[in-house]
Amino acid sequence: MHGLFYSTEERALRDFIKEKLQLPSTDTGGGWLIFDTPEADLGVHPTDGMSPPSGTADISFYCDRIEETVEELKSRGVEFTQDIADHGYGLVTYFRVPGGFDVQLYEPRYEK
Amino acid sequence: MHGLFYSTEERALRDFIKEKLQLPSTDTGGGWLIFDTPEADLGVHPTDGMSPPSGTADISFYCDRIEETVEELKSRGVEFTQDIADHGYGLVTYFRVPGGFDVQLYEPRYEK
Repeated sequence: MHGLFYSTEERALRDFIKEKLQLPSTDTGGGWLIFDTPEADLGVHPTDGMSPPSGTADISFYCDRIEETVEELKSRGVEFTQDIADHGYGLVTYFRVPGGFDVQLYEPRYEK
Repeated sequence: MHGLFYSTEERALRDFIKEKLQLPSTDTGGGWLIFDTPEADLGVHPTDGMSPPSGTADISFYCDRIEETVEELKSRGVEFTQDIADHGYGLVTYFRVPGGFDVQLYEPRYEK
């Protein structure tokens, strides 16, 4: 599976993922980094087709212990825009990334 | 990393990913399957912020030998909507999924 974000600050976002999230990467040419993720999974959410349109994708990150992960990321200068909240499926927060949008980080409640 | 698609036919799309793409899955409750991916990577694409908006995500799939993978998926009943084409970064095609949208499958040209 390949995930991608579109960003108005694509180079800054690549630096952010490399330096703050510390995912390993390969420069595939001209600074275009492809990041490897230690693991990944995929879900399918229902929609009425209007909001959002069918086929809309989203990417988030999950971790084992969200409080520790948030503290670690904060120590690297990551800005969190919401407190950790219980969304049922997991404990959820959001951090700000270059390009002016928020990305979800969660600790899943479910076992897999 | 967690990827998700919104689909107007969420149960049919889950069945499709399970039966046609044959990703292993866990039912996290009520048929809500979470699929594990054998590997995953992440890229960042530039945008002017209008089309698409900054923060837009996308998910595609990659493979080692696209012609073999296309033939294998066709033999399982997957419908491809475009011929394999050279997009520079790789050889690219698209298949149709429940919910009425197309998902990209590519064989990357770059080494990582």
